[in-house]
Amino acid sequence: MKHLKQLLTLAVFGFSSTTVVADEGMWQPNQLPAIAKELTKAGLTLDPKDLTDLTGFPMGAIVSLGGCTASFVSDQGLVATNHHCVYGSVQYNSTSENNLLKNGFLAKNLAEELPATPGSRIYVTEEITEVTQLIKASLTDEMSGTNRYKVIDDNSKKLVAECESDARYRCSVVNFHGGLEYYLFKQLTIRDVRLVHAPASSIGKFGGDTDNWMWPRHTGDYGFYRAYVSKDGQPADFSEDNVPYQPKHHLKLNKSGVDDGDYIMVIGYPGRTNRYRTAYEVENMFTWTYPQAKAYREELIALINNNSEEGSEERIKYESTLAGLANYAKNYGSMINSYNKGTFLSRKQALENNISQWVNSNSTRKAQYGETLSGLNALVQKENQQQARDLILGYMQYSKMLSSAEKLYRLAIEKTKPNIERESGYQERDIARFEQNMKSVDRRYDEKIDQAILLAMVTHYVALPKAERIPSIDQFFGLTSDITDKKQLAVLVKKLAAMYQRTRLNSQQQRIDLMHKSVAYFHNSQDPFIQLAVASFADRQAIEEQSKELAGSIQAYRPKYMQALIAYFNAHKLPVYADANSTLRITYGNVKGYSPQDGIIATPFTTLEGIVAKNTGISPFDAPQKQLNLINKKQYGEYVKSSLASVPVNFLGTLDITGGNSGSPTLNGNAEMVGLVFDGVYESIIGDWDYDVQLNRSIHVDVRYMLWTMQHVDGADNLIEEMDIVQ
Amino acid sequence: MKHLKQLLTLAVFGFSSTTVVADEGMWQPNQLPAIAKELTKAGLTLDPKDLTDLTGFPMGAIVSLGGCTASFVSDQGLVATNHHCVYGSVQYNSTSENNLLKNGFLAKNLAEELPATPGSRIYVTEEITEVTQLIKASLTDEMSGTNRYKVIDDNSKKLVAECESDARYRCSVVNFHGGLEYYLFKQLTIRDVRLVHAPASSIGKFGGDTDNWMWPRHTGDYGFYRAYVSKDGQPADFSEDNVPYQPKHHLKLNKSGVDDGDYIMVIGYPGRTNRYRTAYEVENMFTWTYPQAKAYREELIALINNNSEEGSEERIKYESTLAGLANYAKNYGSMINSYNKGTFLSRKQALENNISQWVNSNSTRKAQYGETLSGLNALVQKENQQQARDLILGYMQYSKMLSSAEKLYRLAIEKTKPNIERESGYQERDIARFEQNMKSVDRRYDEKIDQAILLAMVTHYVALPKAERIPSIDQFFGLTSDITDKKQLAVLVKKLAAMYQRTRLNSQQQRIDLMHKSVAYFHNSQDPFIQLAVASFADRQAIEEQSKELAGSIQAYRPKYMQALIAYFNAHKLPVYADANSTLRITYGNVKGYSPQDGIIATPFTTLEGIVAKNTGISPFDAPQKQLNLINKKQYGEYVKSSLASVPVNFLGTLDITGGNSGSPTLNGNAEMVGLVFDGVYESIIGDWDYDVQLNRSIHVDVRYMLWTMQHVDGADNLIEEMDIVQ
Repeated sequence: MKHLKQLLTLAVFGFSSTTVVADEGMWQPNQLPAIAKELTKAGLTLDPKDLTDLTGFPMGAIVSLGGCTASFVSDQGLVATNHHCVYGSVQYNSTSENNLLKNGFLAKNLAEELPATPGSRIYVTEEITEVTQLIKASLTDEMSGTNRYKVIDDNSKKLVAECESDARYRCSVVNFHGGLEYYLFKQLTIRDVRLVHAPASSIGKFGGDTDNWMWPRHTGDYGFYRAYVSKDGQPADFSEDNVPYQPKHHLKLNKSGVDDGDYIMVIGYPGRTNRYRTAYEVENMFTWTYPQAKAYREELIALINNNSEEGSEERIKYESTLAGLANYAKNYGSMINSYNKGTFLSRKQALENNISQWVNSNSTRKAQYGETLSGLNALVQKENQQQARDLILGYMQYSKMLSSAEKLYRLAIEKTKPNIERESGYQERDIARFEQNMKSVDRRYDEKIDQAILLAMVTHYVALPKAERIPSIDQFFGLTSDITDKKQLAVLVKKLAAMYQRTRLNSQQQRIDLMHKSVAYFHNSQDPFIQLAVASFADRQAIEEQSKELAGSIQAYRPKYMQALIAYFNAHKLPVYADANSTLRITYGNVKGYSPQDGIIATPFTTLEGIVAKNTGISPFDAPQKQLNLINKKQYGEYVKSSLASVPVNFLGTLDITGGNSGSPTLNGNAEMVGLVFDGVYESIIGDWDYDVQLNRSIHVDVRYMLWTMQHVDGADNLIEEMDIVQ
Repeated sequence: MKHLKQLLTLAVFGFSSTTVVADEGMWQPNQLPAIAKELTKAGLTLDPKDLTDLTGFPMGAIVSLGGCTASFVSDQGLVATNHHCVYGSVQYNSTSENNLLKNGFLAKNLAEELPATPGSRIYVTEEITEVTQLIKASLTDEMSGTNRYKVIDDNSKKLVAECESDARYRCSVVNFHGGLEYYLFKQLTIRDVRLVHAPASSIGKFGGDTDNWMWPRHTGDYGFYRAYVSKDGQPADFSEDNVPYQPKHHLKLNKSGVDDGDYIMVIGYPGRTNRYRTAYEVENMFTWTYPQAKAYREELIALINNNSEEGSEERIKYESTLAGLANYAKNYGSMINSYNKGTFLSRKQALENNISQWVNSNSTRKAQYGETLSGLNALVQKENQQQARDLILGYMQYSKMLSSAEKLYRLAIEKTKPNIERESGYQERDIARFEQNMKSVDRRYDEKIDQAILLAMVTHYVALPKAERIPSIDQFFGLTSDITDKKQLAVLVKKLAAMYQRTRLNSQQQRIDLMHKSVAYFHNSQDPFIQLAVASFADRQAIEEQSKELAGSIQAYRPKYMQALIAYFNAHKLPVYADANSTLRITYGNVKGYSPQDGIIATPFTTLEGIVAKNTGISPFDAPQKQLNLINKKQYGEYVKSSLASVPVNFLGTLDITGGNSGSPTLNGNAEMVGLVFDGVYESIIGDWDYDVQLNRSIHVDVRYMLWTMQHVDGADNLIEEMDIVQ
C-alpha cells in the first residue's frame, strides 16, 4: 500500500515530500479535484474536473455489467468489455451444432444479434449521493450491535426502495471506509442486452486457466454487447421492437495505442479490497483462513476429479465449479506466498504503531480514538472464535442439495414478512435471480459428487470440538461420538446415501415449485434435505443473529478506526482512497514492465509471435489456423508497433485494479480507449490487501490486437466501421 | 548451428560477408591461428597463438577430471572445479555424524585435506598428435565393415598401449569429424587427488534438480581439489609422503569479474555434440528415439516411485537413479519441444540440398562425393531397423542383476584373450573401475524395484514383432506366444520371481568373486541371471558383430560426408569445428541475457537478493542462515557490482558448451578466471544438435560470489590467501 509504505518511510526518514505518486489508489470521482494536479502531471490531458461529472464525458460512457465493467463505443449502444464477461452469453447461445464458444460469434447486422444470457443487465450510474446522515442519524453509541445492524439495514432498504420506485433504476446504498460514509448509487438499468461479437475462445481465452494471472500473456479478452431500449428510449424487457440505446457519450478508440511509460487510466467498478484491515485481521487471514480454505479447495478438487472421468458428462457439469475452486486455490496460494516472502505484516504493525503514537500525542485525539483499535480487534477476535466451524459450514454450501434446501426454506420464511423487511437476497427484486439459480443446479449437479462433497465437509465438521458443533445438526445425523469411531463414519455414510436416494430436490420442477410453498409445507416435507434445513434452522438463525450482533458492534468501531487513519494521513497531507466496494473508481498510472524475480524482467508488451510460440494446437493453446497463417506471413496491417516490429497483443500497466474492473476500458490521457484491462499478474494477487509498486501490474489487451483480430481474422468490418477510430 | 544457418542465409541472399562470428564453435587449439583475427576482435588480449601451446599459459592450467573440467589456481596444485564435480568425493567422506554434503567441508591446512573418492584422477593434456595416417593407412574401400572396424580398433589400441608404456600417462585415440581425422591424446595422470573445500550443498547445489537447466539461477557450484605427487614430482598413488603438485601454470582470479557484454571464453573438455548429423538422422532421433526414450524413462520413474515409500531406504538407494532418469527425461522433453517449435530439420535439409548442388556442380566433386550422403543414410537406416529392440535392451540394463551378470560373463570371456585384443572396458586398465562398479551395486539396488524394472522392460520386449525378438531370450523366459496372452505374462512374472529368489548376484562378495572365475565356471553356474547371460550371449554377440559391421561400414562414409561438408564450408571461407568428443576445446563469446519467451527477458546477472527470495527453508531452497543474515545486512564486502548494487551470483554467456565443460574456468580476455561454467539454460539443451544464437546460453557461477561466500560465509581465508587474486 503506497500511502502506508510511503508514510512509513517518511516516519523513518523524516518528511521530505508530500507528493501523491501515481499507480496506487482507486479514487472516487468526487475525490479527483483533490488530486487534480497529480493527474495532470502524470499525463491526463482532459480537465480532471471532467471526470467528476457522471453524465459527462468520459464517465457517462462507462457502465457496469454487474461483476464486470464495460463502455459504450458507439452512438448506437455498442458496448465493449472482456471476452470473459460475455462468456456466459456466448455459452447460452451455443448448441452442439453451432458451438459459438469454439467458433466465436459475429453479428453482421442488428438483426443477427443474439439475446444475452437471461438476467444480463447494463447499469449506467447516473447519480451518486452521500447519504451518511440519513443512514446513521438514529445510531447511538449505546445501542446493541443487533440494533445498530438493523437500523443501518432498514435505513438502507428504505432509501433503495424509494429510489427504485422509478422502475428504470436499480439502486444501492454502499458503505465506504468500513461504514464511515454511505452513498446511494442510482443506476439506469438496461434490460435488453444482446450479444454482438466474441472471438473464438482460442483467441478470447487463449492460454485459459494455465495463463490465468500469468505473464507473458497473449489473450484476446474482448467481446461486444449492444444495449437496447424501447422505441421511446426507456429501459425495457427484450422485444423485437426495441431499438439500440443511444448513449450521450461513447469512447473513441485510438489505434496508435500506447508506448512503454505512457500515462494510462482505468475507470470501472472494482469489487473488493482490504487495504485498511488491522494487523490482527491480516495475520489471521494469511496464517489461518487462506491456508485452511486453500486446503479445503484442494480437497474438493481432488474429490471431484476422483469421482468423475475426464471428459465424462459428470466432469463437464463440474468444470466451472472446478475452475472456481482451482482459481481461488491458486489465488490464495499466491497471496500466502507473497505474505510469507514479504514484509506486509510488519509494515502494517508499524503503521498501527505510528497511528497510535500520533493519536496518543494529543489529548483530544486520545480521548476520541485511544481505544478504537483495541476495541475493534477485540470484536474481530470474538468473530474469529468460531471461524473453523464457519469455514466448514461455508464450504458445505458446495453441496447443491444442502444449499438449495436451506435457501428454499429461508425463502418461504422471508416471504411471510413485508417485502421491505426481508433479508437481502429474498426480496421481490431478487426473485428472478433466485429462480435462475434454482434452475442452474441441473447443469452443475451430480448426485455421487454432491454426496462426496457433503460427506467430506461433514467429516471435517465432526472433527470439530463438541462445543463448536451445532446440536440440531449432530442430532439429525445421529452423531453422538467422535468420527474416529468408525461406526460413526459408517452411520454418516449410510445416512447420506439414504438422503440422496430419497431427496427430490434434484428435480428442477421440484425446486421451482418449492419457491412458492408455505412454511408449513416445508415443516411437513418428507424430503431429507428439507428436513435437515428445517431442523437446523433455529441454530443457524442463532448463529446469524450472533454474527449480525457482532457486525453491528464492529460498525461502532471500524468507522472510528478509519476516521483516525484518515485524519492521520490527512495530517500528513495525503489523501485516502476507500477500499473497493463495487462502485465507480478511477485508477491511473503507466505502461510498465517489472521484475517478477531476480534475473528476469517482464517486458511491457507481448507480440503476435508469442502466440505462435505458445501454440501447441491443444486447448488452451490452440490459436485458429487463420490467425497463425497471418502471423507467419507477418500480415500486421496498420496495427504494427514499430519498436516491436509486430502487433502488440497484451501490455502491462501499474494500475490499481481488482476483480470487477474486468472489461474496463484502458484510456490514454485524452480518455481514448487504448485497451481493455482483464487481469493482474501473479505477484499482484496480494494487491487486494497490499499494493506493491514494484510488483503490482495490471494486464491489458492492446487495442491494436483487438482491431487487428477483428479486421483480419474475424472480418468484423461492420463494427470497425461503427466505432470512432482515431490515431 | 550458426555456420550452417549463416550459410543458409548466404545461400538465399547471396554472399555478402564471410566473417566468422563468435559464440558458436568448440575450437581445437590447433585451429586457433585460423580464427586469430576474430578472437582478437572479440576481445582476447592474449596472443591467440598462446592458446595453441598445450604446456604454456593458459592451456597448461586447464585439466580434466574425466567427465568434468578443472583448472589449477595456485602453484601448489590447488584445483578449482564445480561443486557437482567434487560431489562424489564429498559424499564419500560424509558420515552420519559428520555430513559433509550438508555442512560443507573446508581443510584449513594441507593436513586436513581428505582423499577424493577412489579412482579420482586429474588429467593434464601434454600432447595432442594427429595419427590419422597411422590409424587409416591400411584401410581400403573394399574391406568389410567388420574388418574396417577391427583395423581401426586394433590400430588405436596399439597406439594407446605404446603411449601408456610410460605408466604416468593415460592415452586415447579420438576420432574427429566422424573418423575423418584421428588424434592421440597423452595425459599426465595424477592419482593422488584430495578434497580441499566444498560449500554446503545448500549453497553448492542451491536450487537442486528444480533449478537444473533453469534461469534465473543462484547456485554456488564450485569446489576445490588438490593434486598430489610423489616427492620427486611424479604421479603416485595416495601416500602420506606425497606433496602438492606444482603445475607450470595456474590461473589468476580477477575479482572485478565481468560486465554485461564482456568477452569471455571457456577452455575445457566438452563431451558429445551432434552438429553434423544428417537430416535423416535428426528426424529419426527427434521423432522416434527421444520421444520413446522419454516414455521409458517416465515409466521407470513412476515404477520406482510406486515401489518405494518416500524417504524409505529403498527410495534413498534409487535417488541417484531417479535423478538420472528424470534429468534426461527433462532433457529430451526440452529437445523435442525445441525441435517441434523450431526450424531445425528444414534448415538441415536445406543445407544438405545446398551441399548436394555444390557437389553436383563440379564433376570432380560429383565423382568424389556424389553418393556419399545417400550411402551414409542407407547404412544409418539399416542401423535403425532394430532400434525399437535395441532401445529396450538398453533400458533393460537398468536391472542391476541382468547387467551385472552380462558384464561379469563378458569379463570372463575377454580375459581369455591377450589384453590388447580385449574389448574396451575389459582391459587391465579398466579393471579397477569395473570393480568399483560391481561394488557400487549394493548402494543402488533393491530386489523388488529391480524386478519391477526388468518385468516392465521384458514386457515391452515381448510386445515386439517376433522377427525382432531374440530366440535365446524368448526360450529362456519360455515366451512362446504374445504377451496379450495373460498366461504368458503370468509365466514371466513367475519366472522373474524365481530368478530373484535364487540369484546370489545381490551379494557384493559374490560379484567380486565372479570377476576372477573362468568361462567354464559360468557355464556351470546355477545362478539364473548368469544362466540368462550365458544362454543369450551368442545372440547378443551376433547383434554386437552386426553393429560393428555397420559401424565399420559407416566409417567408410561418414568421414567422406564430413570431408564434403568441410570442403563446402571452406569454399565459402568458413572454418569448421569438430563435434565435441571429450577433447580439449576453446569456445568464446560474451556475457549476455536472452529472451526465453515473448514478453520475458532473462537479465545476464542474478544477485544475492535472489537467494533470499527463493529461499523457503526447505531443500533445495534452504540457504544457510548465516548467508541469509549477511545478505539481509547487505554485507557485500569488496565483491559488490555497482550496477547491480549487490554481489552477482550467476551470469549468462553465449558460450558453446556441453556436458564435460562442467567446472571449466570462465576466462576474460587476459585468461584470468572470472567464473566457472556449470550449466546451460533450458532452451539451449537442443544445443548439442543445433546452436541457436538467440537462445543458447551458458550459465556461470560468478567469481565474486565464489570469493564472497568463501570469505564471508565459509571463512576460507587460507585458500583466498593461496590464490592469486587480481582486479
